[in-house]
Amino acid sequence: MENFVFQNPTKIVFGRGVEKDTGSETAVFGRKVLLHYGSGSVKKSGLYDRVCQSLTAAGAAWVDLPGVVPNPRLSLVRKGIDLCRKEKIDFILAVGGGSVIDSAKAIGIGVPHQGDVWDFYATRTLPVKQMLPLGVVLTIPAAGSEASNGSVITKDEGTVKRDAGGECMRPRFAIMNPELTFTLPPYQTACGAADIMAHVMERYFTRTTGVDFTDRLCEATLKTMVRNVPIVLESPNDYEARAQIMWASTVAHNDLLGTGRVSDWASHLIEHELSGEYDVAHGAGLAVIFPAWMRAVMSTDVRRFAQFACRVWDVDYDFAAPERAAREGIRRLTAFFKSIGLPTTLTELGVTDDRTDKMSKSAVERGLLGNFVKMDAAAVKKVYELARG
Amino acid sequence: MENFVFQNPTKIVFGRGVEKDTGSETAVFGRKVLLHYGSGSVKKSGLYDRVCQSLTAAGAAWVDLPGVVPNPRLSLVRKGIDLCRKEKIDFILAVGGGSVIDSAKAIGIGVPHQGDVWDFYATRTLPVKQMLPLGVVLTIPAAGSEASNGSVITKDEGTVKRDAGGECMRPRFAIMNPELTFTLPPYQTACGAADIMAHVMERYFTRTTGVDFTDRLCEATLKTMVRNVPIVLESPNDYEARAQIMWASTVAHNDLLGTGRVSDWASHLIEHELSGEYDVAHGAGLAVIFPAWMRAVMSTDVRRFAQFACRVWDVDYDFAAPERAAREGIRRLTAFFKSIGLPTTLTELGVTDDRTDKMSKSAVERGLLGNFVKMDAAAVKKVYELARG
Repeated sequence: MENFVFQNPTKIVFGRGVEKDTGSETAVFGRKVLLHYGSGSVKKSGLYDRVCQSLTAAGAAWVDLPGVVPNPRLSLVRKGIDLCRKEKIDFILAVGGGSVIDSAKAIGIGVPHQGDVWDFYATRTLPVKQMLPLGVVLTIPAAGSEASNGSVITKDEGTVKRDAGGECMRPRFAIMNPELTFTLPPYQTACGAADIMAHVMERYFTRTTGVDFTDRLCEATLKTMVRNVPIVLESPNDYEARAQIMWASTVAHNDLLGTGRVSDWASHLIEHELSGEYDVAHGAGLAVIFPAWMRAVMSTDVRRFAQFACRVWDVDYDFAAPERAAREGIRRLTAFFKSIGLPTTLTELGVTDDRTDKMSKSAVERGLLGNFVKMDAAAVKKVYELARG
Repeated sequence: MENFVFQNPTKIVFGRGVEKDTGSETAVFGRKVLLHYGSGSVKKSGLYDRVCQSLTAAGAAWVDLPGVVPNPRLSLVRKGIDLCRKEKIDFILAVGGGSVIDSAKAIGIGVPHQGDVWDFYATRTLPVKQMLPLGVVLTIPAAGSEASNGSVITKDEGTVKRDAGGECMRPRFAIMNPELTFTLPPYQTACGAADIMAHVMERYFTRTTGVDFTDRLCEATLKTMVRNVPIVLESPNDYEARAQIMWASTVAHNDLLGTGRVSDWASHLIEHELSGEYDVAHGAGLAVIFPAWMRAVMSTDVRRFAQFACRVWDVDYDFAAPERAAREGIRRLTAFFKSIGLPTTLTELGVTDDRTDKMSKSAVERGLLGNFVKMDAAAVKKVYELARG
């Protein structure tokens, strides 16, 4: 087990109807709010009106900035930074899923920064030290950005997708009402599930030894997903199952599960190239890339893959041939993704042309990928090839 | 699942040698420190000197208040409050286990309070709104007080043991080096384990439905204890196993595992009477009381006890007679406590006279106990009787 520092002060306000508390939670930090959201589905659902009522009741004023798209764009971030400066915004409220929150984080770190906000994303070497205070009303359980210290943004020109991070980037509060996720379409629900599971698995596949406790917490979180995702696909309005997924999405990525362990993140970064290049859903990309990454690296640590198989997927351990159990775990993960309606090959994802050379080179632009296995461009390319299907 | 608010801002600094950071973490909050500890074992071990060096290097001055005993006493708390006021203390540093931390919390809430600090403990109705900032150097994984919002104090006169709680009572930081626990005697290690497991089980046994995720996190934490406690009893210097237990002790009681669920706490309160009356170790008392409580209430929710048995203790579910599986879970918990050297009956605990009437009445002084089953004095008495052995 590695030494670690863990601190996650995000206040989680969870349950039925909790969006009514948005105003009072906001008023603790600011009175002039940037209200950031996506395509307008929050207006159709009535959530926008409820949030605005709550802000008004708490004496807060706001300026709207809608228009966040999946794989959120740098151009809107820049517009948001200008708007915040002009309107003297002192608080950002993100109403939406991971894309909206990540866009809000980028705006929040851009406002106090003298240079270009993309500097934080381009090199990963510039430390983020300040962010406008940010609150979240979460509508999609997936990215875990509501309590994480990271943000992923796509540069419009050249479709480059990059991440930035810093402890100051954790939201001050997250309003989480599982009822708001009843209307999520099945495909988006499944994509969110793949993202959540990937956040756990990026931490689970580690070379750090002596991590029994966090191993078990990871396994518990994965088993929760395996049980509850099929339930909500069958019964979208099942509050309890939606609630398990929503709370698991936060815990999967609030850093608890990674305490004392070196995490991997190669699959995420390999997928970022894919969704940057083809603008596919991040979760769908992960459902394709993660099993391929597993097949590429399994032989380097059969024991860990066998543990994953036995503890998460109830595979019978094969004492004579542990690699059989290990392989069966990957097979069951893949079958699970299929069963919830996700693609598990590039072809199924709709990627039929070959840009693997370009993507492999771009993926390692900031350095080798991963920690479980360190990957250069050739190793990354192999993952894309295994994912071809 | 119930609506909940979860926020735990305690900064965890975990790993080998981290006590060297005590001074820099302290200096964020204060310069005039009350250094609170127990019997002096921290001096023998050299920890006291290392902490003082770190404080000096950070420019902090301190006043010593040693003498905390297990089941920490109100008299020393009062002395500490006077000392803090006289010396204009602006930060409390607790170096020790749960008793030292709980004593420090009581001092911390007593200093800004106009009336008697016992008011917070006597009635549980007076809200705690302010506490001097508190930091912890943890030496015993057990109470979870290093990140919890509670404190338990024993009134010297009449041996009354009571708890108080409030969100402001969470420590600002906890320095946690598993190496500091290598020298814990086996009995104290085992008592700590019983306390940790009880904190999980008090949350696990709930009537709240739709709590799959936290169920699994609880089970993961219990399994971690079941695996690692025997290892450290055999190899006290096993860093990895000590580390699992230490981190589990915090997570067991930092409120994550209780999110969205109504917890019970009857066993803790029934035990508080016991350790208040006989001054026995809290963990040993819990090893006696918890299985007795389970036998008293099992028939009211066989399904939950069967789940506990199957998922934590790998009991084969008995489809024809689920109560057999449920009973087997209680039997295995009891056998586990025995196997790690704990008493599981009042007789083994050294309690041979009969004060159950007095304790049962005192236990319900502030109201009925528990939520899984609401217990009056007669029900509490039955638990003591089942514990007799």
